[in-house]
Amino acid sequence: MQPIDLDDLNAKSKADFVADLANIFEHSPWIAEAAADQRPFTGVAQLLAAMTRVVQQASPDRRMALIKAHPDLANKTQRAAGLTADSSAEQNGAGLDRLSEAEYAAFERVNTAYRDKFGFPYIVCVRRHTKDSVLRDFQRRLPNDAAQEIERTLEEICRIAALRLDQQVSGGERLAVNGWLSTHVLDTHGGKPAPGIAITLIELCALGEDRVIARAVTNADGRTDQPLIHGRPLPIGQYELNFRTGPYFAAKQVPLSDPPFLDRIPIRFAIAEPEGHLHVPLLVTPWSYGTYRGS
Amino acid sequence: MQPIDLDDLNAKSKADFVADLANIFEHSPWIAEAAADQRPFTGVAQLLAAMTRVVQQASPDRRMALIKAHPDLANKTQRAAGLTADSSAEQNGAGLDRLSEAEYAAFERVNTAYRDKFGFPYIVCVRRHTKDSVLRDFQRRLPNDAAQEIERTLEEICRIAALRLDQQVSGGERLAVNGWLSTHVLDTHGGKPAPGIAITLIELCALGEDRVIARAVTNADGRTDQPLIHGRPLPIGQYELNFRTGPYFAAKQVPLSDPPFLDRIPIRFAIAEPEGHLHVPLLVTPWSYGTYRGS
Amino acid sequence: MQPIDLDDLNAKSKADFVADLANIFEHSPWIAEAAADQRPFTGVAQLLAAMTRVVQQASPDRRMALIKAHPDLANKTQRAAGLTADSSAEQNGAGLDRLSEAEYAAFERVNTAYRDKFGFPYIVCVRRHTKDSVLRDFQRRLPNDAAQEIERTLEEICRIAALRLDQQVSGGERLAVNGWLSTHVLDTHGGKPAPGIAITLIELCALGEDRVIARAVTNADGRTDQPLIHGRPLPIGQYELNFRTGPYFAAKQVPLSDPPFLDRIPIRFAIAEPEGHLHVPLLVTPWSYGTYRGS
Amino acid sequence: MQPIDLDDLNAKSKADFVADLANIFEHSPWIAEAAADQRPFTGVAQLLAAMTRVVQQASPDRRMALIKAHPDLANKTQRAAGLTADSSAEQNGAGLDRLSEAEYAAFERVNTAYRDKFGFPYIVCVRRHTKDSVLRDFQRRLPNDAAQEIERTLEEICRIAALRLDQQVSGGERLAVNGWLSTHVLDTHGGKPAPGIAITLIELCALGEDRVIARAVTNADGRTDQPLIHGRPLPIGQYELNFRTGPYFAAKQVPLSDPPFLDRIPIRFAIAEPEGHLHVPLLVTPWSYGTYRGS
Repeated sequence: MQPIDLDDLNAKSKADFVADLANIFEHSPWIAEAAADQRPFTGVAQLLAAMTRVVQQASPDRRMALIKAHPDLANKTQRAAGLTADSSAEQNGAGLDRLSEAEYAAFERVNTAYRDKFGFPYIVCVRRHTKDSVLRDFQRRLPNDAAQEIERTLEEICRIAALRLDQQVSGGERLAVNGWLSTHVLDTHGGKPAPGIAITLIELCALGEDRVIARAVTNADGRTDQPLIHGRPLPIGQYELNFRTGPYFAAKQVPLSDPPFLDRIPIRFAIAEPEGHLHVPLLVTPWSYGTYRGS
Repeated sequence: MQPIDLDDLNAKSKADFVADLANIFEHSPWIAEAAADQRPFTGVAQLLAAMTRVVQQASPDRRMALIKAHPDLANKTQRAAGLTADSSAEQNGAGLDRLSEAEYAAFERVNTAYRDKFGFPYIVCVRRHTKDSVLRDFQRRLPNDAAQEIERTLEEICRIAALRLDQQVSGGERLAVNGWLSTHVLDTHGGKPAPGIAITLIELCALGEDRVIARAVTNADGRTDQPLIHGRPLPIGQYELNFRTGPYFAAKQVPLSDPPFLDRIPIRFAIAEPEGHLHVPLLVTPWSYGTYRGS
Repeated sequence: MQPIDLDDLNAKSKADFVADLANIFEHSPWIAEAAADQRPFTGVAQLLAAMTRVVQQASPDRRMALIKAHPDLANKTQRAAGLTADSSAEQNGAGLDRLSEAEYAAFERVNTAYRDKFGFPYIVCVRRHTKDSVLRDFQRRLPNDAAQEIERTLEEICRIAALRLDQQVSGGERLAVNGWLSTHVLDTHGGKPAPGIAITLIELCALGEDRVIARAVTNADGRTDQPLIHGRPLPIGQYELNFRTGPYFAAKQVPLSDPPFLDRIPIRFAIAEPEGHLHVPLLVTPWSYGTYRGS
Repeated sequence: MQPIDLDDLNAKSKADFVADLANIFEHSPWIAEAAADQRPFTGVAQLLAAMTRVVQQASPDRRMALIKAHPDLANKTQRAAGLTADSSAEQNGAGLDRLSEAEYAAFERVNTAYRDKFGFPYIVCVRRHTKDSVLRDFQRRLPNDAAQEIERTLEEICRIAALRLDQQVSGGERLAVNGWLSTHVLDTHGGKPAPGIAITLIELCALGEDRVIARAVTNADGRTDQPLIHGRPLPIGQYELNFRTGPYFAAKQVPLSDPPFLDRIPIRFAIAEPEGHLHVPLLVTPWSYGTYRGS
């Protein structure tokens, strides 16, 4: 979907403006409506700030209505009945549409426990998380009291809104809502970047199946043509980068042991900052390697 | 079982000597018998050399009889009927007594294909191999011609004999039939050996299940009290060493990301030399690590 | 001096064109004159190619005259009498105007030995060399025969011309005659780029004094704002990069030994490719460090 | 000089015992005399403890007499008049007998400033120091008050005594007064220890000349046959280890740049614990290297 230009939004009728931004906050067009009068906006950041202010200044009842307008996470019944396109895409992106039985059960327990305690759905900006880190977030938030959780939930709702705005509206400086993950392979045996190394990025999952989320091959600079993840938040969670270095050194006719000492090198690491820039390189010979968190 | 002292063997009657060493070569006491007259032996190496010479100088028929005295690998029927204690221990050590269905099928194909082509069982010194490398060895040997395979098989039989002698007889310098695998963890964040790091050594398996073969915790010197493998050959194959560094740095109150960037560090490597000394250390901070093949 | 725009050169009278490029080849305006008729040139590379072709197609006498139009290296008498501005700048850039007595003596021996054997001056593109590597180049070339040396010398003369053109004419894609040397410092103790590290780049000299050729301090990205060398060839030679990491870790209140284990870290390396891109980073904790040739 | 056996000392007449140990504490046989009656000693540690107790329990006057029995450091007049053999050996070991003019001047200032303030000579156990660290120790101690300095001085005197005892008497467990410094070179290009690497250990000196204090060549294990320093304290100070790796890789016919990127690798580090075990290895390819403080 082509993003709408902010200048167009500034020029539209109030009704059209509200229609375009009705679902930036889930099922809550009143937020766009209240922000409309503050036009023109010089950038997406200003638009987001205006909408966020509307939420902050709303009455407790409206704020609670906003919260309750959100669906449960990974709820089969609600999915069958239909989610908004945004909610659906967000949940699917995190893999919540293809959970194992154990995972479904875990999410159902989460939703029920949370709703039982607070009376509103457990909401988290899933695009910043893996399934595992959603469950970890839940466990940290469940002990909170209601006042804390209302604040925390509105914060997550604003994060969801920011990501929707970033996708759907263009204009001015881009919101700092995305991260990137990159790598490169340096052949310290030959003193050169290593081209042609197959790389796999796997999201590790405690309850369900691990999942390959990117494949790439290093180019002449030992880098990948695109970052492994970019243009979206880096989901908090556990990952493995896998580098197929065995065939590379074999092709260079370097003397190797049989089988080669190193063949597929795994690097397991966690992502903690969804908006961060994370560089995880590999320095490698047939007999040694190293990695570090770079930026 | 206590090893027999070589001096005792030198002093025994010929009949007792032969009885003690009857099964150094599977079901073939004639080898010990022929070697008995060359006593006294100054060391186990001299005893092995004498027995090996008997094999080398035997007639083609006797050599073939020696070969055919060996069981198939991982053959259920033969296992049920009973193997020699040595064969049984050797095969079990490599995990051939607890194969997955896919593995049983693979081994049955191997045995049949080999026997069909050569007319004698496929023999390999399994204590020098993992299941995967047995199958790899088979694939390399099957294209050979019969003359090559008879030589190759007798070589493996002598390796089996050497390992049995090393276990069962003591005296003189020890045979160079064993290897060791060791590790240590150096905390380059603190500039000190890292104590208390839980380490797991896993044998990786292409067809069946991966298998934990050693667990250890680093001591005050960042080393394990015992090598991870020692006193036996290092089975050729693929391995993963796993270092639990997350709790170590957390306990030191080092500022970490949440979740910590590194928690369980896997190092995957191959063993290629069963009689080698292999040292695979970890140099680690909360944000970087390196390893190398040391000795 | 502002470079001349190639479009202007293309549009000028032949006399002005020749005047502007008279000294691209030392004291040899006939080369520009012969190239003038091939205008217009679409880029500096095409201009250089045309001038180079003139040299290649010239008669042996003219080629020898071109060679003999060059001054000796580091010759006091000639310096006193006056070099062309280009020659002077090139020789001074390599430090040939401030040689130690031992160095002067060495260069005089070189010039004399070379002239005695070949009957023309020893010529090398000094901007691609340090003093040490000039002397090394001489030692390698002196055993050549005259025909080889004439070719080799014309090659050097064309390199000198290429660098003069790159400085004096702009237009089209830039000539690949320059390199760059860069560094960065990664603090693997903290998992971050290290800002504020003082860096010194020293040219090491076998006969004379070592010479600081760049100083910089790392910025927030752990890099220097400018490459340590750029916009010119990297002179072949021996170098030391010096990183002052002691105060950095002390300021972070990291527990250190007294005196700190590491304080000023020297990395000695050679530059071999004047037109190359060389990156020499430092990965460092208070107790360990590493470096590698990157690109 | 052959150390005296502790059993012999235990058995000797009191007069002989005192004669043998008269100079363990400089010009102060009364300490040996008071300790003699506590014989027999089960080890050198017990003997040292007894002598130390004598010092601790002595009257202030006797303690001051002990202090004043010591010579100045690096004092030419006193050297000409003659030091005890022990003092002379200790000062010479630290290079105090061959100071530059600047160093003599510095030491003279130290001695005078100290004596002027406290009325007794500045005493430090020089075998635990380099010249630079003696001057650094002085600067830290000069601001102390007299009571502090008397304690500090007696502590140094007991360190001197411990080292003399360790050299001159054998028996029981050895005193923990010595350290060692070792290295090894691992060729991570070939995955093996690197033999034949020439190593130089240099003591760096701020005021005077740097000084080579050990040379070695790596053996088949990539180690030196002896530690670089052992059997004595590691003098606190700044050092450079220099590894000549260029010829090693050239001899292996590894493709290298010209000149080779790495040739002589310097590692500069400080020693802070004279009684420590310090291991400073080199992991190296033709294009990269790393080091760390090991133990």
